[in-house]
Amino acid sequence: MDYYKESLRLHEENKGKVEVISKVKVENKDDLSLAYTPGVAQPCIEINKNPDDVYRYTSKGNLVAVISDGSAVLGLGNIGGHAAIPVMEGKCVLFKTFAGVDAFPICLDTQDTEEIIRTVRNIAPMFGGINLEDISAPRCFEIEKRLDEMLDIPVFHDDQHGTAVVAAAAIINALKIAGKEISEVKTVICGAGAAGTAITKMLLSLGMKNIIVTDIDGAISTEHPLSNNNLRELQKLTNPENLTGTLKDVIPGADIFIGVSAPNLLDRNDIAKMNEKAIVLPMANPNPEITPEEAKAGGAYIIGTGRSDIPNQINNVLAFPGIFRGALDARAKSITEKMKVAAAYAIAELVSPEELSTEYIIPKPFDPRVAKAVAEAVKNAAE
Amino acid sequence: MDYYKESLRLHEENKGKVEVISKVKVENKDDLSLAYTPGVAQPCIEINKNPDDVYRYTSKGNLVAVISDGSAVLGLGNIGGHAAIPVMEGKCVLFKTFAGVDAFPICLDTQDTEEIIRTVRNIAPMFGGINLEDISAPRCFEIEKRLDEMLDIPVFHDDQHGTAVVAAAAIINALKIAGKEISEVKTVICGAGAAGTAITKMLLSLGMKNIIVTDIDGAISTEHPLSNNNLRELQKLTNPENLTGTLKDVIPGADIFIGVSAPNLLDRNDIAKMNEKAIVLPMANPNPEITPEEAKAGGAYIIGTGRSDIPNQINNVLAFPGIFRGALDARAKSITEKMKVAAAYAIAELVSPEELSTEYIIPKPFDPRVAKAVAEAVKNAAE
Repeated sequence: MDYYKESLRLHEENKGKVEVISKVKVENKDDLSLAYTPGVAQPCIEINKNPDDVYRYTSKGNLVAVISDGSAVLGLGNIGGHAAIPVMEGKCVLFKTFAGVDAFPICLDTQDTEEIIRTVRNIAPMFGGINLEDISAPRCFEIEKRLDEMLDIPVFHDDQHGTAVVAAAAIINALKIAGKEISEVKTVICGAGAAGTAITKMLLSLGMKNIIVTDIDGAISTEHPLSNNNLRELQKLTNPENLTGTLKDVIPGADIFIGVSAPNLLDRNDIAKMNEKAIVLPMANPNPEITPEEAKAGGAYIIGTGRSDIPNQINNVLAFPGIFRGALDARAKSITEKMKVAAAYAIAELVSPEELSTEYIIPKPFDPRVAKAVAEAVKNAAE
Repeated sequence: MDYYKESLRLHEENKGKVEVISKVKVENKDDLSLAYTPGVAQPCIEINKNPDDVYRYTSKGNLVAVISDGSAVLGLGNIGGHAAIPVMEGKCVLFKTFAGVDAFPICLDTQDTEEIIRTVRNIAPMFGGINLEDISAPRCFEIEKRLDEMLDIPVFHDDQHGTAVVAAAAIINALKIAGKEISEVKTVICGAGAAGTAITKMLLSLGMKNIIVTDIDGAISTEHPLSNNNLRELQKLTNPENLTGTLKDVIPGADIFIGVSAPNLLDRNDIAKMNEKAIVLPMANPNPEITPEEAKAGGAYIIGTGRSDIPNQINNVLAFPGIFRGALDARAKSITEKMKVAAAYAIAELVSPEELSTEYIIPKPFDPRVAKAVAEAVKNAAE
């Protein structure tokens, strides 16, 4: 199937992908008097008396805003709020389909950090959670942190934490097969943006000690230009041996490679220099840092990508629907590191020891158990 | 039925009234590749090339934001954004039920005029229209005017214009029965807020010449304190004889009374002093400026209120669904005076000369012809 051509047809035929419907019928005078005036005054009065009743009488408790300024959309880059709408509508569709979460797209006509923070704060009353999407680094870190502090509902940047949770689940299971300890392995992560930073922090939370992060200026070390706060923080958290040089310079001897950057940065010779039973997760979308064929030719033991046409697809849809389902059900005020770690283990544990293999380290996106298991784990971790 | 008690049950049972659903199914890998990655990139690319394609490939063209800061909600006053949610969800339900318009509630956590304008501007990309709701005067005038100027989608404050369109429709038909000319009658409007101001301007558009507007400081005249721009503008537009004094002072000899203020301001003696065949529309909700019984006792010829339990209900639901349906279908950039006048005549004309009577001057809210007729008239007037 030509996905690009068919997708245009699908979007045009349906005029987009989300619809807002009524949960109550309004067919006569009595219906109108209950759903609207005069009866609607009563829930308003109750909420005014007891603010917590907003979860009892309105849609807030099941409603997530999917918010983007369109500054870092998929492989498309900075296309702005209008052109990002199809992606955000798609995300809302996945929230509803996979976890019954009502999600509504909010595409912004500003890319100013302060303006975005104020706008999201101002529209927050209607929502039980905020999912930030495709906002470029390093602005995304500041926006998420400030909003999470000021709002009493969870704020989650899926490009960071959704990706980190799913990558962590894959690593947990890959290490089981490879028979390696997370505290012993050397990991190279290519990409120091939203995803690379969050994956690094999550793997540190899981007990990993030796991570080297690289970006366009090479390994993040004391020799790196460290041009923003995020890079300076990563330098402190990672690279205990202070390795310097390019991606290709630091990859020899690595047990794990994780790519969240750009296509075609590695070849088979690089993989061949990694440690035995190398775990290679080139996740750049739609074209990975190294093709699966090339990684295999270099001797990779386990390969996982963002692609759906080969085994071990590392897909965010395994995480975000269940994470929000669990957070909303617990009425959590934030999505904590503990909740994210619980989500990663919940996903990993759905692959039984009997099923676990180099070609099956992570459940498939349509595995119907996933969202429920993640939601339960996240809800328990929140309480 | 106890509407207040039943309404609580309805709202709690359904957890609010709006739901966001998917228009496309996502049941397998191919579906996912069309609605989300990689296929979704194609409509994004098209919109990025040709901004107008946002109407072709997204939900924008049928989506209206119902926006409120909760500063002037029904009879409840300033209850804020959270407590206003049930009303805004209700409004969205009516949009969908009566005209198939997808409407989403946005309840604001700010009541600052500049903050509201910036916030609505920032979230506008996703919407084909903006319906402002229950925002107090005089801030509502500034907010509507500025947003309508800066956005290329229609901005409509229903408390102003929806009310004005429906009141105008009632007046058009009431004058037919009373056999009076709109240019000859004397009209007293009690209330100089959002609704009173908009009704005044619409009746002037229809050719009325002698309107006296009153508020808590009495008739708007050169003797009135005129404490804001809106009142100063009304003083210039109305009261050609510069009548002064209270509501009761100016009502003798009036052909029409329209109330959009507070309960129990008039009694039968006031009505008795009006001109013969007096048209009395006390529209304060839920309790009118004079009860229908009392108005009748004073000799009122035609009575209309906001109440559904007596004839001639002046209900905004006759106007706003069809007005937005028509504006969206025409892809109008604003809802002009011409479109509003067309809507008023379309509503009035649904009552045939044979049916027209003192007890039937305006269609009932559930008359299935209304939204369609209004939409067509508005669409034609837009083109």
